Amino acid sequence: MRRAIFPGSFDPLTNGHLDIIRRSAPLFDEMIVSVLNNPEKNPMFTVDERCEMVREVLPSVGTGGCSMLVEAFSGLTAHFAREREATAIVRGIRAVSDYEYELRMALMNRRLEPTIETVFLMAGEEYSYVSSTLMKQVFELGGRVNGLIPELVEKKMGEKNGDDQSGSPRTDKYSGRSRR
Amino acid sequence: MRRAIFPGSFDPLTNGHLDIIRRSAPLFDEMIVSVLNNPEKNPMFTVDERCEMVREVLPSVGTGGCSMLVEAFSGLTAHFAREREATAIVRGIRAVSDYEYELRMALMNRRLEPTIETVFLMAGEEYSYVSSTLMKQVFELGGRVNGLIPELVEKKMGEKNGDDQSGSPRTDKYSGRSRR
Amino acid sequence: MRRAIFPGSFDPLTNGHLDIIRRSAPLFDEMIVSVLNNPEKNPMFTVDERCEMVREVLPSVGTGGCSMLVEAFSGLTAHFAREREATAIVRGIRAVSDYEYELRMALMNRRLEPTIETVFLMAGEEYSYVSSTLMKQVFELGGRVNGLIPELVEKKMGEKNGDDQSGSPRTDKYSGRSRR
Amino acid sequence: MRRAIFPGSFDPLTNGHLDIIRRSAPLFDEMIVSVLNNPEKNPMFTVDERCEMVREVLPSVGTGGCSMLVEAFSGLTAHFAREREATAIVRGIRAVSDYEYELRMALMNRRLEPTIETVFLMAGEEYSYVSSTLMKQVFELGGRVNGLIPELVEKKMGEKNGDDQSGSPRTDKYSGRSRR
Amino acid sequence: MRRAIFPGSFDPLTNGHLDIIRRSAPLFDEMIVSVLNNPEKNPMFTVDERCEMVREVLPSVGTGGCSMLVEAFSGLTAHFAREREATAIVRGIRAVSDYEYELRMALMNRRLEPTIETVFLMAGEEYSYVSSTLMKQVFELGGRVNGLIPELVEKKMGEKNGDDQSGSPRTDKYSGRSRR
Amino acid sequence: MRRAIFPGSFDPLTNGHLDIIRRSAPLFDEMIVSVLNNPEKNPMFTVDERCEMVREVLPSVGTGGCSMLVEAFSGLTAHFAREREATAIVRGIRAVSDYEYELRMALMNRRLEPTIETVFLMAGEEYSYVSSTLMKQVFELGGRVNGLIPELVEKKMGEKNGDDQSGSPRTDKYSGRSRR
Repeated sequence: MRRAIFPGSFDPLTNGHLDIIRRSAPLFDEMIVSVLNNPEKNPMFTVDERCEMVREVLPSVGTGGCSMLVEAFSGLTAHFAREREATAIVRGIRAVSDYEYELRMALMNRRLEPTIETVFLMAGEEYSYVSSTLMKQVFELGGRVNGLIPELVEKKMGEKNGDDQSGSPRTDKYSGRSRR
Repeated sequence: MRRAIFPGSFDPLTNGHLDIIRRSAPLFDEMIVSVLNNPEKNPMFTVDERCEMVREVLPSVGTGGCSMLVEAFSGLTAHFAREREATAIVRGIRAVSDYEYELRMALMNRRLEPTIETVFLMAGEEYSYVSSTLMKQVFELGGRVNGLIPELVEKKMGEKNGDDQSGSPRTDKYSGRSRR
Repeated sequence: MRRAIFPGSFDPLTNGHLDIIRRSAPLFDEMIVSVLNNPEKNPMFTVDERCEMVREVLPSVGTGGCSMLVEAFSGLTAHFAREREATAIVRGIRAVSDYEYELRMALMNRRLEPTIETVFLMAGEEYSYVSSTLMKQVFELGGRVNGLIPELVEKKMGEKNGDDQSGSPRTDKYSGRSRR
Repeated sequence: MRRAIFPGSFDPLTNGHLDIIRRSAPLFDEMIVSVLNNPEKNPMFTVDERCEMVREVLPSVGTGGCSMLVEAFSGLTAHFAREREATAIVRGIRAVSDYEYELRMALMNRRLEPTIETVFLMAGEEYSYVSSTLMKQVFELGGRVNGLIPELVEKKMGEKNGDDQSGSPRTDKYSGRSRR
Repeated sequence: MRRAIFPGSFDPLTNGHLDIIRRSAPLFDEMIVSVLNNPEKNPMFTVDERCEMVREVLPSVGTGGCSMLVEAFSGLTAHFAREREATAIVRGIRAVSDYEYELRMALMNRRLEPTIETVFLMAGEEYSYVSSTLMKQVFELGGRVNGLIPELVEKKMGEKNGDDQSGSPRTDKYSGRSRR
Repeated sequence: MRRAIFPGSFDPLTNGHLDIIRRSAPLFDEMIVSVLNNPEKNPMFTVDERCEMVREVLPSVGTGGCSMLVEAFSGLTAHFAREREATAIVRGIRAVSDYEYELRMALMNRRLEPTIETVFLMAGEEYSYVSSTLMKQVFELGGRVNGLIPELVEKKMGEKNGDDQSGSPRTDKYSGRSRR
């Protein structure tokens, strides 16, 4: 039995995340989409809301024979991977700055749990610029992100911010978000 | 008629910005220096102060036949470019980390407005390390930034922070600024 | 009148090149696709063959009101740009290693001709991995490159190598090509 | 049954390669170390010699329940992966320049065989600078590479170059090798 | 007399820092470990606590004939280097993103004090992922950082956070720390 | 006594090299400009010609109290550094791709000679694009490189290629040089 965890904030889930899930599923018998509980980061969605969204959207992704689970976790990724007896930690990579950060985290995680490997997959090039942070920034400023995040997530984001799709900036209902 | 926008925070305007303006002007009939209204970022200067400084300094830059405008904007850069019927968004590039960020933003802006291209120009190598953030950090800690920002801007920064040029750190009159 | 040169080896022309041409055309009144004469590099196609292919394929690219010319050149790009009284040199950028190289060349070209700017545009993300060298390598080893290079170019490559599309490596009819 | 190929030139096999094999083995039921037949690159060892060395050294690597095979191949990696009905192509990553190259190859391979994913694993940091090319360069100039390549490989390299371990440069018995 | 400063926040001191000190000591007659006083960054340890920890740990590092001093400083690194009549500023480098930042700072410092050079040394590869920030994050979430920071520092971190080594996240006793 | 070696091909010596020498000289009592004997690379100048040019130009560089020597060497840089009882190997760094390569070489050299550190200094930003290879390419194609290489070197390059400064490509008198 090969089990992987796919850790992240998923605030919100993007089509880039789903792409990584779809691509890595054939490598594992079970994958746990592991949603980081990070209230101090002032997330747009609570960890419960994020888990629920992932659960609702996952059935639309073809994961073949790989069983998909969704779980919230706190603390260190490496510790959670060990507790779940995972063989691997799955991470998507895009650009260089990403990669440097990912490399450092993977080396630290390897030190914490030497038997669990971090496995990197490349997102499709159509998602090469898609990050949760950018999706939130664009959405809040009135930009369309359809096609880059699941429809359900877009709907939930609209409910969080008010459902104004007119192209003018949405009211910023939660603090601490950098804009650009 | 080819119109470009040159978007940024310009908090403050640097000689690196002016270098990009001077170099890109020959490509366009009109360029709008587009100053982002970002009060949530706790800027050193208000958007009005920044627009005024750009307007005062611009005549010193040789832009040939290119008409120069200065405008504040809110929301998404791509939306503002569309509203102004711009052909292109001009951005300066320096180092690699810059480039990765710029690439992601350009791909997102392209998705939002597929007919408006982001055009990158390289700043002169003498400005390869000049960013607004670094200029503020150095200035606040008592360092000289003459030659890297316009004289007028240096004077206004002095008025913001008190005009102490003695080499000792200036009093930090506004919050949330990281120092180094 | 704004004229640009778009220099390169075009050995062979790829859809990534055409993408850059299409995107940059609105910025200029005239663009010269400038094909480097580099016999010492042992190109797959002669410079005349390359010019002819570009000329045949160009009409399929929507370049609006921008006049398109195709010319071979020898020597330094900056000198050719000056001789043609170009306002700008257009270059496509993709990845980081690309960028470093392009930056160095642009700084050197600026030193050689200070009034001619190098203008960078980003290829579409679907071409983020497409280079002439990779196209040749894959083609020679029997891989399909349809959709990544123009059909005409693919046909000409087939004639150069024999028209075997069976998936087995083609005979290597010219020397000095690294394979991978 | 999950099968991976681990393609490369392995000219020569390094401890960095073995590290990647050991780390990726738990993810697969079978792994084919796939040695590229590249006579035009003027390799130090023939493809048969390389396959044999891999076969001799592999038993010393703990690969758990993963069956290990060694095979030479010609042509495109993606085609070979398809012929062997592989689920994944395994690649080790180290530094940034590496990564850019690997990303481009992985995107091209994905286009050639959309159902086969490239999976990246990080070599141990003690191998972060170890490449086959560097090992050959250092060895030929009389440097010790013990601990960085398997003992058997070091012995075979000595037989190729003469067994001079005195610290003076070895005679360069094969051409086309760049030195530094 | 060649004097260097080795500036940083040292919040906390890591074995990576000590590695750089040990490697650079032979180049200088005197080195001042220069601890930045940055209360606005909400450090884990006060500048006095950090200076004291460095002083306690330093004797364990072999610095040969190089005299070691520890001093707190405020303001610009370049100004402090000038005041101490330093020949050089020593900095460790690891990854690319690091490097870009370091390059920019070194160019700015050179402009501020043209006669003082920034000298870069590479940390051992076993510390390639070790930063003060990562050490704090991992420690706070209950991870072991032994071997990556001096024992004394680990003990002091435990006292700051409570001495829970059970593997569960530690109570977050100070604010503004991002977690991952 | 602190001795450094500054190794390179110096084919030809550039003002970027001289900049690094000038900046690093205050750190050492003696510096050996160490010219690599690499006939298999088909250099423009023989190793003797290169040594002589360095010797002629060096007196124009202010190196304060640092004694300057020039020596040819063969084989591994680390071995030569050991033989000369050097404390350090000096290297200049510019861009990212550079840096990656330099890092790998420094780690390898450290393994070969653990007590000799590689010390990196940054060239002035006006030399950020200057490499020996680029200087040769531009010169051969008729471009002016004055200000980027010493006058003496420019004169010697002219003698190698014929003294045509008219702006047209020079005859390529030696083989194996890539052009661009």
